[in-house]
Amino acid sequence: MLKHCFAILYISRRFTARISKTKLIEAEKLLRRQEQFISDAFEFGRYTTRMSNSEVEKILSPLRLLVKEQGDIVRKMKEDGVPVIDIQQAVAELKVRKKKLKDKEDELAGKEDFPRQKLEETIKRRFLYGQAFEIYGGVSGLYDFGPVGCMLKNNMISEWRNHFIMHDQMLEVDCTMLTPEQVLKTSGHVERFADLMVKDLKTGSCFRADHLLEAHLEKVLQEKGTTDEVKDRCHKLLPQLDNFGKEELAKLLKEFDVKSPLTGNEISDPVDFNLMFQTSIGPGGAIPSYLRPETAQGIFLNFKRLLEFNQGKLPFAAVQIGTSFRNEISPRAGLIRVREFQMGEIEHFVDPEDKSHPKFSTVADLRVPLYSAKAQVSGQPPSLMSLEDALNQGIINNETLGYFMGRIFQFCVKIGIDITRLRFRQHMDNEMAHYARDCWDAECKTSYGWVECVGCADRSCYDLTCHAKCTKVNLVAERSLSAPKEVEIVKVICNKQAIGKAFKKDAKKIQEHLEGLNQEEIAMLEQSMQTDKAFKIVVGGSNFTVAEGMVSIKRNKKRVQVEEFVPSVIEPSFGFGRLLYSSLEHNFKIRAADEQRCFFALPPAIAPYKCSLLPLSNKEEFKPFITQLSKNLTQLGVSHKVDTTSGSIGKRYARTDEIAIPFGITVDFDTVKIEPHTATLRERDTLVQIRAEVDELPKIVASLVTGQSNWDEIMQKYPVFQEQVNK
Amino acid sequence: MLKHCFAILYISRRFTARISKTKLIEAEKLLRRQEQFISDAFEFGRYTTRMSNSEVEKILSPLRLLVKEQGDIVRKMKEDGVPVIDIQQAVAELKVRKKKLKDKEDELAGKEDFPRQKLEETIKRRFLYGQAFEIYGGVSGLYDFGPVGCMLKNNMISEWRNHFIMHDQMLEVDCTMLTPEQVLKTSGHVERFADLMVKDLKTGSCFRADHLLEAHLEKVLQEKGTTDEVKDRCHKLLPQLDNFGKEELAKLLKEFDVKSPLTGNEISDPVDFNLMFQTSIGPGGAIPSYLRPETAQGIFLNFKRLLEFNQGKLPFAAVQIGTSFRNEISPRAGLIRVREFQMGEIEHFVDPEDKSHPKFSTVADLRVPLYSAKAQVSGQPPSLMSLEDALNQGIINNETLGYFMGRIFQFCVKIGIDITRLRFRQHMDNEMAHYARDCWDAECKTSYGWVECVGCADRSCYDLTCHAKCTKVNLVAERSLSAPKEVEIVKVICNKQAIGKAFKKDAKKIQEHLEGLNQEEIAMLEQSMQTDKAFKIVVGGSNFTVAEGMVSIKRNKKRVQVEEFVPSVIEPSFGFGRLLYSSLEHNFKIRAADEQRCFFALPPAIAPYKCSLLPLSNKEEFKPFITQLSKNLTQLGVSHKVDTTSGSIGKRYARTDEIAIPFGITVDFDTVKIEPHTATLRERDTLVQIRAEVDELPKIVASLVTGQSNWDEIMQKYPVFQEQVNK
Repeated sequence: MLKHCFAILYISRRFTARISKTKLIEAEKLLRRQEQFISDAFEFGRYTTRMSNSEVEKILSPLRLLVKEQGDIVRKMKEDGVPVIDIQQAVAELKVRKKKLKDKEDELAGKEDFPRQKLEETIKRRFLYGQAFEIYGGVSGLYDFGPVGCMLKNNMISEWRNHFIMHDQMLEVDCTMLTPEQVLKTSGHVERFADLMVKDLKTGSCFRADHLLEAHLEKVLQEKGTTDEVKDRCHKLLPQLDNFGKEELAKLLKEFDVKSPLTGNEISDPVDFNLMFQTSIGPGGAIPSYLRPETAQGIFLNFKRLLEFNQGKLPFAAVQIGTSFRNEISPRAGLIRVREFQMGEIEHFVDPEDKSHPKFSTVADLRVPLYSAKAQVSGQPPSLMSLEDALNQGIINNETLGYFMGRIFQFCVKIGIDITRLRFRQHMDNEMAHYARDCWDAECKTSYGWVECVGCADRSCYDLTCHAKCTKVNLVAERSLSAPKEVEIVKVICNKQAIGKAFKKDAKKIQEHLEGLNQEEIAMLEQSMQTDKAFKIVVGGSNFTVAEGMVSIKRNKKRVQVEEFVPSVIEPSFGFGRLLYSSLEHNFKIRAADEQRCFFALPPAIAPYKCSLLPLSNKEEFKPFITQLSKNLTQLGVSHKVDTTSGSIGKRYARTDEIAIPFGITVDFDTVKIEPHTATLRERDTLVQIRAEVDELPKIVASLVTGQSNWDEIMQKYPVFQEQVNK
Repeated sequence: MLKHCFAILYISRRFTARISKTKLIEAEKLLRRQEQFISDAFEFGRYTTRMSNSEVEKILSPLRLLVKEQGDIVRKMKEDGVPVIDIQQAVAELKVRKKKLKDKEDELAGKEDFPRQKLEETIKRRFLYGQAFEIYGGVSGLYDFGPVGCMLKNNMISEWRNHFIMHDQMLEVDCTMLTPEQVLKTSGHVERFADLMVKDLKTGSCFRADHLLEAHLEKVLQEKGTTDEVKDRCHKLLPQLDNFGKEELAKLLKEFDVKSPLTGNEISDPVDFNLMFQTSIGPGGAIPSYLRPETAQGIFLNFKRLLEFNQGKLPFAAVQIGTSFRNEISPRAGLIRVREFQMGEIEHFVDPEDKSHPKFSTVADLRVPLYSAKAQVSGQPPSLMSLEDALNQGIINNETLGYFMGRIFQFCVKIGIDITRLRFRQHMDNEMAHYARDCWDAECKTSYGWVECVGCADRSCYDLTCHAKCTKVNLVAERSLSAPKEVEIVKVICNKQAIGKAFKKDAKKIQEHLEGLNQEEIAMLEQSMQTDKAFKIVVGGSNFTVAEGMVSIKRNKKRVQVEEFVPSVIEPSFGFGRLLYSSLEHNFKIRAADEQRCFFALPPAIAPYKCSLLPLSNKEEFKPFITQLSKNLTQLGVSHKVDTTSGSIGKRYARTDEIAIPFGITVDFDTVKIEPHTATLRERDTLVQIRAEVDELPKIVASLVTGQSNWDEIMQKYPVFQEQVNK
């Protein structure tokens, strides 16, 4: 199994190395060929060996059938217009069945038994990252990246920048993390971005209410004395926990008499706990604020400036790479659930009437694993499908979404995600965020289960509309009309004298307010004037009443060539920490020959260092060669690490393997003695070593790293070095 | 003057272009030649024309003399051991004189009259950056970077990464911004990182106490009725405002009856306002925390992991690029004083007994403008001096500080800082931060005065010592001894039985505590046992008393080869926003021929886009050429911007100049009609255009951008295009 897996990874590694070539056009062609290859290999057995080999499928198929049956019932009920309450009951049963299927899938998948502890030890030992503030006892959900992790993350972000921003000439912005409360009220985060929490009434310890109830129900199911009736109720409740509100959860916690799991103390009723970190800007708490929970809002607020920068033209994509914050109640699961994390978010603004994408054809025949909402409801596994087919069958809503899904898939391959552990899962209606119209998550399979690493959502015009409404700033674009049309322009004309007389010093701002009313508000004013002969307004926090004679309404016809509209937004949103962790898991390998030796088979493009430089021992005579090699590698832009510590060469190789260095040059006695001077070059995954001239080696490594050559070619061109092959 | 300035800038631009060549060794040689050239040019008149031409010097020299006289007096008093109170009085008078000199210098410098408003309009119009949350009314001290500003900042940071991290193989880390209170208590920030603030008692508006008093005293000085006696007192007080504490300021605000400048209302007494943003981590305010005010602390906390990563060896430098936060009371001055800003901090850990640097020789003969503490006290202007001379004369404390000052100077030149508006100012004893032993600021002259852009401080062992003391984690390195020595090891031996009997369930943790005592604490235990027959300890928040017979002390001799020590830290700390703003100001030019046309003469290495692509008009026949050129530029990694909007070619050139694009390719009718196809290439600063084949142009631009060729060479090689030369 492991060897098998390795073969695929090795292909993807080479493939990635190739595409970072400067000659992009050729690389594009290669990419297409490689994709086809991977895609085919993927379909013909490999994906299925992991996800649905016959043994596994034998167990799953009856469960799939149960889901499908109930899914059909729900669909029929909806078609027949059965009362909502009955449909809800049927949906609840559907969820129970889906949960059983998922649990079984997870259980079977878990049998692969990923050596997570070994991975974590390696990460810690080589300081890829570690818990922040460890010497102060540590804070959960906060991690510091060490030199290797930092380089890895930087390389990943740099690939992201090339793959998305450069490739599609997107507009990058960098907005502040500090965000005034008013902005996040408008976006809905102050109200909705919360989890329900309960407190231990004596110690004050806090727990997420749904997690606590879930753990309790599962405990009840395990207990010997539990009656079948109670078990049945637990089974019914478990899949629905996500949907329960504050009151329902409170009732259930009481019904099952849930106590604090740490102390056995009574717990409080659930309360909303907003997941944003609160602070305030300026002295005296002048501006209540939060740390942003996503980077997207900064882009929306700059929409007008960006549209102007783009000379008024749509579509365009703006993008931001930055840190966001979520005050998780009790984060676990390492880098998967953290309180401070780096994201990359793309907001692609597009005319809602035309969501086609000019470059869709470049990804149309890419076959990606889709797990549609329909498949989920029918108990079907994900299926491999070309993006074009998915679009034509209406599985993916529009070309722009499809284009980005293709680009996301390609990016995941570049950074070493194992495509047999990658899928796009479509959100069900009931799990869609408050702003989303359609949403696909790129999920990576890890030892924590399937993890959402990239979201790809159609946010429609939700955000721009909200901010425009709150700020009265018109956040729209213009489209040319096929034919000019006549529109009615309604305006408020103020009677300056009357207003001045009535409101004295406030007159000016009242007049400005009235002249700034939008069409809707003018209609209200007009109606109010007709019915009440007065119109109440609030200006600068004070109430005023506009009486008859102070204003009149003027109507004009105007011929226009353009019309305004609020753009839709397609948002691919990346969590770099989760992608990094998934890539580490997917590339974590143990040597067949020695269980103690593990390594990361990361693609050279994102590997922290590209090459190691090792003198065979600490002898002075090796030093000039190491110095010269280091200089030449630097000149060629190849990041490398010199290891002059004592310890056998085998041990030092093992150490470089652990931090994913793909190539290693060793200077030995023959290097010094024999002219022309030669040294060995070792490849991490195959363990093969070749011997070449010292002057040539840096160029060879550079060509391997940039993808101008591959290891097969190098092995054919240079003599394989036989000693120490297994070190 | 402007033209003159331009000549220097043009040299520095070309010079910068050259050094980004891949062949680093040759570039290094070139760098040395260029530096010598700049350095010489700098000394022979150019620097002096700005800072101390004869007219200016005539005005300043009597003021310099006054400072020098008083400086001599203070020095003599210190030598003679005169009572402190007398010295303080003499120092106060010295400050008064220095302030007068500085004010006059600023006043004379201000006469250059930088067109800041024009700069700000350009920055806003082309969205380099803008106030954050503008559509919500804006928040002062917070800025969003637009596409051009973001690319500029990214390019600057990328140059920084190459210049510092890659060049010296530093260890980059990425730590969290959220920081528990305890950490910042230890570092001294909770107590000391504050400004004194007063409040308008009616409106609650806040002001910085020292700024308010300063403004008031200056107003009093201007008023007609002010007596000479009061004037004299104002003059005495003004230079000392920095030194006054809470009580002194309170007294002075009362003495001068200072009111709120906005309303005339009474104001409160000064209170400490901590400049850190407060928040808390986890539910229920579990962990009181702040947003970090600097990135350095994250590095100190990871010292142990980093030392281990570096295999126990010193010196090494760790580095972090990241965002920090300061809750300024009332920020003004654009990017110079903001509440959220990106920094790059290097913490170079070194043996305090050996602060030499192996690469110092590479910068030793670099001549940089030094404004030493001694020069400041003596009323002397900054002087150009080689780093080697400064080190030998004891002006710069050690080689490592000197090495970094040289590297900082080179970096500033790379990013387009005008070296005639750059100086290193040494901190005076009384302005040094609480942790610093010696400190030099790289200051850039802007229209806001001299601005600290880079700090270069010797933090000695302050931080590691504090954190070690608080956490009981030993933050030390080891050095080999020239000869082994014998040391006494003192150990606490617990009587398990006695402790178990006395403390029951607490016994284990008490035993652990006792065995973990350090040498100092063991000495205290021993003494306490002798005098009181008991020793009080606090374990897990509870008090316990260790009685006789529970512990004994064991002494061993041990031969050791190494000894432990706390490393010193040399810290170069960069504010990217300030450097970016300074570079924008230094490179902001107005065309001699047209006052309305301005441009940024930024070095290609950091210019946001390297090239523009302009079809002469919107005709279809130009499009294939633009598409092909764009593809070829992308292949060569040259970022570029296509401008297909309508508008004369001259207007479009002006637009690309405003966003600092150094090169522009224009496709015109001759491109289409005549074979082989050619197009024009325009250089931003000289406005010269040449004509070359379309296939060749991308390579020409790439060679210019990477510094493989320069514009002089290109002008000689290709025919200069005469039409539209002044567009």
